[in-house]
Amino acid sequence: MFENAGRTEINSLGEFGLIDHLTQHFTNTQINTLTGIGDDAAVIDTGTEEAMLVSTDMLLEGIHFDLAYMPLKHLGYKAIVINLSDIYAMNGTPQQVTVSIGFSNRFSLEALEELYSGIRLACEIYHVDLVGGDTSSAQAGLTISITAIGKAKKSDITYRKGAEAGDLIAVSGDLGAAFVGLQYLIREKKIYMENPGVQPELEGKDYVLERQLKPEARKDIIEFFNSSNIIPTSMIDISDGLSSELHHLAKQSGCGMLIHEDKLPIDPMMYNPCIDIGLEATMCATNGGEDYELLFTIKQVDYEKLKLNSDIHIIGYCTDQYGSVKMISKNNNEYPLEAQGWKAV
Amino acid sequence: MFENAGRTEINSLGEFGLIDHLTQHFTNTQINTLTGIGDDAAVIDTGTEEAMLVSTDMLLEGIHFDLAYMPLKHLGYKAIVINLSDIYAMNGTPQQVTVSIGFSNRFSLEALEELYSGIRLACEIYHVDLVGGDTSSAQAGLTISITAIGKAKKSDITYRKGAEAGDLIAVSGDLGAAFVGLQYLIREKKIYMENPGVQPELEGKDYVLERQLKPEARKDIIEFFNSSNIIPTSMIDISDGLSSELHHLAKQSGCGMLIHEDKLPIDPMMYNPCIDIGLEATMCATNGGEDYELLFTIKQVDYEKLKLNSDIHIIGYCTDQYGSVKMISKNNNEYPLEAQGWKAV
Repeated sequence: MFENAGRTEINSLGEFGLIDHLTQHFTNTQINTLTGIGDDAAVIDTGTEEAMLVSTDMLLEGIHFDLAYMPLKHLGYKAIVINLSDIYAMNGTPQQVTVSIGFSNRFSLEALEELYSGIRLACEIYHVDLVGGDTSSAQAGLTISITAIGKAKKSDITYRKGAEAGDLIAVSGDLGAAFVGLQYLIREKKIYMENPGVQPELEGKDYVLERQLKPEARKDIIEFFNSSNIIPTSMIDISDGLSSELHHLAKQSGCGMLIHEDKLPIDPMMYNPCIDIGLEATMCATNGGEDYELLFTIKQVDYEKLKLNSDIHIIGYCTDQYGSVKMISKNNNEYPLEAQGWKAV
Repeated sequence: MFENAGRTEINSLGEFGLIDHLTQHFTNTQINTLTGIGDDAAVIDTGTEEAMLVSTDMLLEGIHFDLAYMPLKHLGYKAIVINLSDIYAMNGTPQQVTVSIGFSNRFSLEALEELYSGIRLACEIYHVDLVGGDTSSAQAGLTISITAIGKAKKSDITYRKGAEAGDLIAVSGDLGAAFVGLQYLIREKKIYMENPGVQPELEGKDYVLERQLKPEARKDIIEFFNSSNIIPTSMIDISDGLSSELHHLAKQSGCGMLIHEDKLPIDPMMYNPCIDIGLEATMCATNGGEDYELLFTIKQVDYEKLKLNSDIHIIGYCTDQYGSVKMISKNNNEYPLEAQGWKAV
């Protein structure tokens, strides 16, 4: 029935277009649904000054991960971390997770134990409780679906939509390394498939590999905001790449974004791997995904509060040009940043 | 790495054994986690008299559904309903859901629209808001993961563990029809595969087919409890079959369960299909899954409050024989009910 005439291919819409399309006729009727689809997490009123935050993600083998180079323990850890990152991106604190898995008979009990040891490690480090879930056999592959639940004072919650012209744009940590790590792993897998006798050349690549295989969520940045009395005007976590996330903030805030190439935080340990693999560091920093750093905007008056935090970098400012996302290059040219890839104009 | 020596097959543990095994070393550290794994939903304190309930389920193609006979709209509807059923089973009210799907390129946009039209219909009928989710391509098949969020007064929440000897055992609606409907669909698919020219013989089977393809969650029963001032002592929804659920209540409550075959609610529209397909009605009622009726226990003093509700049936009572789950047959013999299948002793 679903392979009949009148067939429209899904990739004609894009991922975000698809969600918007499928959910366009849904309306919210519960008065405690403060925010539904369209931010990093849903916000549910509890009748107190604290709201509940809920975020969910599904990871599919062969799409989101490749077990040829992703150890199961790391996969379990990463699956939790990327969900917690969505709660931090609302300026909230995650407290619980549910984990559902579907697995083919290719997986032994020992394999699932490995996966859950990574899940447990992440739960311990981030102080979240595993409160539910489901395990099921599957016809093929491994699927992991996680829901993270957190809380935040309503007055602290940071949405994607609050940025205004003049606000400063900041990112935590450094950008692009997780993408470089992934390209390495893909290359080494290809070499191995073609010639299993060759040993992988991963020395000196520890940093980029760790960024890809064992990312961390920026709990520390949220704690810093809290102790420094900073509430960002907008925030999102960087899962799909800086450019893509800037577009989300610009679109939902109704403003523009202008960043400077020479302000992009790029770790020195990323340069050699970049050269080795033939990638351009700026391109990795703007379009590489999976860094799980926080991208946020602050009022200029708050600059003094965070300028001494060496792990936060001001990369630009918000403009009044609705939806315009641009970068000023090192040689002072202005480029539009596209959600996928960037090119000179 | 996961196909090496030291391999233990997972089905040696069983589904519940697997969850227990994988999560045995997890400990809860958040003080607002009132109940974690092990009931129909997790219970999270919000600091008010109402707690939040969270339940999650993953449905995988070829395991939980077969698109050869399950229309996508029905599948979307059922996926929501079975998750809401878990919230009702805590004596709570569902308010929000998140929906994540993974789909191969076999699915067109029109197919996903069908799926979401069923999801939307269920959301409208049960007054729940779709507040989040994820869509992703997959290498194969269709996967649906749903998290339901609800609320309940803490003093109303009904766990699996509260039954005591002397309590009455009750079920809503009728049992076994969803299983009979499934057997029909499997039979007709087999006939069709062997001879595509044969038309399916589904006349007179409307009731059992609807129970399988479009189940409902018992919102009305929870509303009846509320208006009648009844709080069951324990409760669970019947997804895996009456026998299996009785074992859960008995084990977690630390008591026994004794039911009477002649009290089992079996719809008259189930008998002919049962005979036609060669199934025994009592076996279907005790071991057939997916009815999504509520199984619960009440104090004897509450009997007067529900005896006039024709959709609630007292089927037995709790005993002090820990873990013992038995049925007295129509000819007055006592049989142990096993979680899977039952046999005379």
